[in-house]
Amino acid sequence: MSARIYFDNAATTPIDPEVFEAMVPYFTDHFGNPSSIYSYGRENRLAIEKARKSVAGILHAHPSEIFFTSGGTESTNTALFGAIHALGCTRIITSPIEHHATLHTCTHLSSTKGITLEYVKLRENGHVDLQDLEEKLAASPAKTLVTLMHANNEIGNITSIEAVGELCKQHGALFHADTVQTVGHFPLDLSSIHVDFITGASHKFHGPKGVGLLYINARNRIPAFVHGGGQERNMRAGTENIYGIIGFAKALEIATMRHEQDKEHIAGIKQYMKKRLEEKIPGVIFNGDPDGESLYTVLSVGFPHSDRSEMLLFNLDVRNICVSGGSACSSGANQGSHVINALNVPVQSTVRFSFSKYNTLQEVDMLLEQLQELL
Amino acid sequence: MSARIYFDNAATTPIDPEVFEAMVPYFTDHFGNPSSIYSYGRENRLAIEKARKSVAGILHAHPSEIFFTSGGTESTNTALFGAIHALGCTRIITSPIEHHATLHTCTHLSSTKGITLEYVKLRENGHVDLQDLEEKLAASPAKTLVTLMHANNEIGNITSIEAVGELCKQHGALFHADTVQTVGHFPLDLSSIHVDFITGASHKFHGPKGVGLLYINARNRIPAFVHGGGQERNMRAGTENIYGIIGFAKALEIATMRHEQDKEHIAGIKQYMKKRLEEKIPGVIFNGDPDGESLYTVLSVGFPHSDRSEMLLFNLDVRNICVSGGSACSSGANQGSHVINALNVPVQSTVRFSFSKYNTLQEVDMLLEQLQELL
Repeated sequence: MSARIYFDNAATTPIDPEVFEAMVPYFTDHFGNPSSIYSYGRENRLAIEKARKSVAGILHAHPSEIFFTSGGTESTNTALFGAIHALGCTRIITSPIEHHATLHTCTHLSSTKGITLEYVKLRENGHVDLQDLEEKLAASPAKTLVTLMHANNEIGNITSIEAVGELCKQHGALFHADTVQTVGHFPLDLSSIHVDFITGASHKFHGPKGVGLLYINARNRIPAFVHGGGQERNMRAGTENIYGIIGFAKALEIATMRHEQDKEHIAGIKQYMKKRLEEKIPGVIFNGDPDGESLYTVLSVGFPHSDRSEMLLFNLDVRNICVSGGSACSSGANQGSHVINALNVPVQSTVRFSFSKYNTLQEVDMLLEQLQELL
Repeated sequence: MSARIYFDNAATTPIDPEVFEAMVPYFTDHFGNPSSIYSYGRENRLAIEKARKSVAGILHAHPSEIFFTSGGTESTNTALFGAIHALGCTRIITSPIEHHATLHTCTHLSSTKGITLEYVKLRENGHVDLQDLEEKLAASPAKTLVTLMHANNEIGNITSIEAVGELCKQHGALFHADTVQTVGHFPLDLSSIHVDFITGASHKFHGPKGVGLLYINARNRIPAFVHGGGQERNMRAGTENIYGIIGFAKALEIATMRHEQDKEHIAGIKQYMKKRLEEKIPGVIFNGDPDGESLYTVLSVGFPHSDRSEMLLFNLDVRNICVSGGSACSSGANQGSHVINALNVPVQSTVRFSFSKYNTLQEVDMLLEQLQELL
């Protein structure tokens, strides 16, 4: 079998060996319960607080605003439930192309709590229509939670969280930004953005799975989502996943330090891939706004619909090339991507290619050869 | 500093090197998202399903009844919320000496959902009064959830989950058994016990932190607690913590294989420690039922109250001996152990000693020397 080409980094990324190395001591020597009161436990508590401080520093937040969870999905659940249960929100405005962690939590809150749920319009290129958002915010005096992605995981479109934050501020709305695709990929200065909650997952930037970030701006007090012990200052019960927390912080430190060089490298791969596809695959289209406000890590490609393109994901897999039709989190479902379905795009066979610092231009060339053979 | 003596294994245990070894490949080579549809992801899904099958086999359950979560606390939350939201329970019977994961979830459900909350009486030795439980079950036609620990994490008392299960069956009640201290320490045959939910955490039996077990008997259908993607058959959204799941299964396999020898070894340490304390420390008492229905891993000791015994935890810590006053999960709180407070015991300085396969009789001797010096 040919060497694997892994172009599905929006689903998950390989752990940076340096991140794993930082985690290992907590699997071996430092196993104490971070909530134990003796020094062998307290040392681990200190390690967690050091990780929290590092993450807070990078995001320009206060350490007391940073909470570690089991992943981006739990973080989003905590923020959304908290805004409804404790902060008086009776309406949610979201978009039809959010991650299922947001959409399914919203529909759950709508059906069980009677929350009004509204979907902001999208512009032709898949961007959130900020004018429609403003009109919706102005149209009702209901206390509102706006939950929108910073960047879409399938098509890569970036929404200005600065602009959304300003609108929310003007209209007294709360704002949850799903930053799962941007934490570790874009510098975020939370001190200058009006945002109430952000969420992150380290496995999207070469950290471990099973650990997430929830930022809660200091002006908000919400209850725990998982009830029990007093961990995470009573915000998240359960023995701390110390390896995960250490790994999260280390991965974010490395990503931040390497940001400029990684961004340049990865953006180069995306651009090269787009150019090569245009040259070699007749009729190829690109979803979203690939040359505009877009993740440098994601390229969503529409191949002209045919018997061959319908089998593309399958045949690429046979050739050891990892790419996806949509989000891994919804890949069990067979009804196609809700994101692509929400866009007004031609019938196509959609493939999301997503890149990391470990990818190369040579891999793009190898992929293109395979694509030409297959189509 | 003298070598560390770690006698706090009810708080957390060191990972068995063999468990860590089983996890490592998923940090390095096999990083694919288990929910991705290509083979590199599906291989990891297969590994998770193999782990699930192994856990199910050991517990005499069906794989479809086994769910992996982020820990025992999340498992308990999922079971309790599910029983209230989806299975029609309007009353909860629990005990005053449950873990906070249970107690705080119960009070939350009571205050937000109007659930009636009743506490079963305890007998003098801290055992749940099963006659009182039966009377409470018979006293109301309300659909009831009984949530009781299989074994208490602070005093070690074991409640017969077979007997509680039978009572619940007779009265049409649901039964959640908090088995966090017994999964991996006692053989459980769920096919012969009338129980609806059990919970477990691998870091209590030499597996990793950050992963938990939730068994849901096939007769019950409850909704997800964490909403989003379709992972864990729509029961637990979020990218799977594959290393944790692999580690959970491996730890349970090792614990099951070694059960007889480990039990004999650890029970020997507990008995030896109890005997030595009785010989050497005048006025020492033991909480719970240490020679009866009790964990072989836990010994709760009451030292006669004095200025010296009040400083005991502190001074043991100085001498690099890890023991606890109560549960690590509530060690942030300063009001003493809710478990000890609920028992009718003399004023004492309580220390919980809890043992694992890695402890030795020599460590007990060293501890006794220190205790004699300190008291």
